[in-house]
Amino acid sequence: MKNFKIIIEYDGSRYNGWQKQGNTKNTIEYKFLEILKKMTGKKVEIFASGRTDSGVHAKGQVANFKIDTEMSAEDILSYINTYLPEDRRVLSCTEENERFHSRLNAIKKTYMYRIYKGKPPVFERKYVYSINERLDFSAMKEASKHFIGKYDFKSFCTKQKMKKSTVREIYSLDITEKNNEIDIIISGNGFLYNMVRIISGTLLAVGKGELSPSAIPEIISVQNREKAGETLPPNGLCLMSVEY
Amino acid sequence: MKNFKIIIEYDGSRYNGWQKQGNTKNTIEYKFLEILKKMTGKKVEIFASGRTDSGVHAKGQVANFKIDTEMSAEDILSYINTYLPEDRRVLSCTEENERFHSRLNAIKKTYMYRIYKGKPPVFERKYVYSINERLDFSAMKEASKHFIGKYDFKSFCTKQKMKKSTVREIYSLDITEKNNEIDIIISGNGFLYNMVRIISGTLLAVGKGELSPSAIPEIISVQNREKAGETLPPNGLCLMSVEY
Repeated sequence: MKNFKIIIEYDGSRYNGWQKQGNTKNTIEYKFLEILKKMTGKKVEIFASGRTDSGVHAKGQVANFKIDTEMSAEDILSYINTYLPEDRRVLSCTEENERFHSRLNAIKKTYMYRIYKGKPPVFERKYVYSINERLDFSAMKEASKHFIGKYDFKSFCTKQKMKKSTVREIYSLDITEKNNEIDIIISGNGFLYNMVRIISGTLLAVGKGELSPSAIPEIISVQNREKAGETLPPNGLCLMSVEY
Repeated sequence: MKNFKIIIEYDGSRYNGWQKQGNTKNTIEYKFLEILKKMTGKKVEIFASGRTDSGVHAKGQVANFKIDTEMSAEDILSYINTYLPEDRRVLSCTEENERFHSRLNAIKKTYMYRIYKGKPPVFERKYVYSINERLDFSAMKEASKHFIGKYDFKSFCTKQKMKKSTVREIYSLDITEKNNEIDIIISGNGFLYNMVRIISGTLLAVGKGELSPSAIPEIISVQNREKAGETLPPNGLCLMSVEY
């Protein structure tokens, strides 16, 4: 068996996420399973670095699958892209050693959340969250520093009954402002369910003046979802890269 | 009466162009007419710099309209944007002198045609024309020089029974290649029906080796649509700017 790693970009607008519990075929994953079955004549499992939620986009999702094949990585890339609809694309395909696993071996993931003040550029409208309020950017920048480090991020997780650890490490959180767009770029060793969208919503609340930047450490420490900001909509979120 | 100039961007994907002969409401123009009527209580005419075809995009279409109003240009901008769907947006609104006319006073228009070799980036898929052939970029660049100047461009016009002059002046034609994308950026004093898409199709034929760069002057001089390349699809085309 050969183990192939693929890097994928997708417009998540019309999908129920990478993979959904239950029976829907309307997932990013589903078409890959179909294509791999067509290509190999067998049922193939595919493992992603993580499930992106319904409506979330990716420019650098990573997945791997093991197959018996004489095809080159380049041929596989071309084959999959031929059958993928135009809102999904494989950017690269490489053969890895047999132990490589896209989720278990990931050491760093980077997401971007895009906020646009006012009516967004029409060509970007599906990929930004637009708001009408003015934001205090320097307060948001101040607040962002408090997220960096290793903490229990339970306050930033939609699912409150986690059996597994809710401790994660955020390596960096950069906020940039250009024209009317504010981008939140966050890297960490992993993220809880909705964590990036809740952190972004909390930073937005700071920008609106509803929260003080200095309130962040307290919000983290209380481990209570209700104390953090809202979960921002999925369309502003994009999985940028996964590192190994 | 005050005369307002607006600069507009739109995703033309789902529209039958700026304005259609006949009765369809599915045009870029139609919603503007509705909004201006709602805003002023009267029927208002709006004049665009030119009609973009069905499926063609714009980042800098210009239009003007004359209304009696106490509203500021900024208020008008905000009002129109509130009622426009998210695939259309007004970028600016300014009051001009009463003689300003967006079509009659235009001195330079710039279009871009985007060709992508291979499966296009998913976030750009609606705005590029994708092909699978390899292209000879330097031949295309060589060919592009022959279009610059004042010529009768009848060979590059879909409508062959033009009563008006088919002479136009092309000020510049730049071709750039970056990664897998080739962009054709063309400026002139005006363009015939489908002219940019036919010039792009002719350059594409050169890139594929079906035409020699040196054939261009002959194609121009014969004034015969059949000698030029195909009319490329509308989705790769965007009206970038209009100058006065």
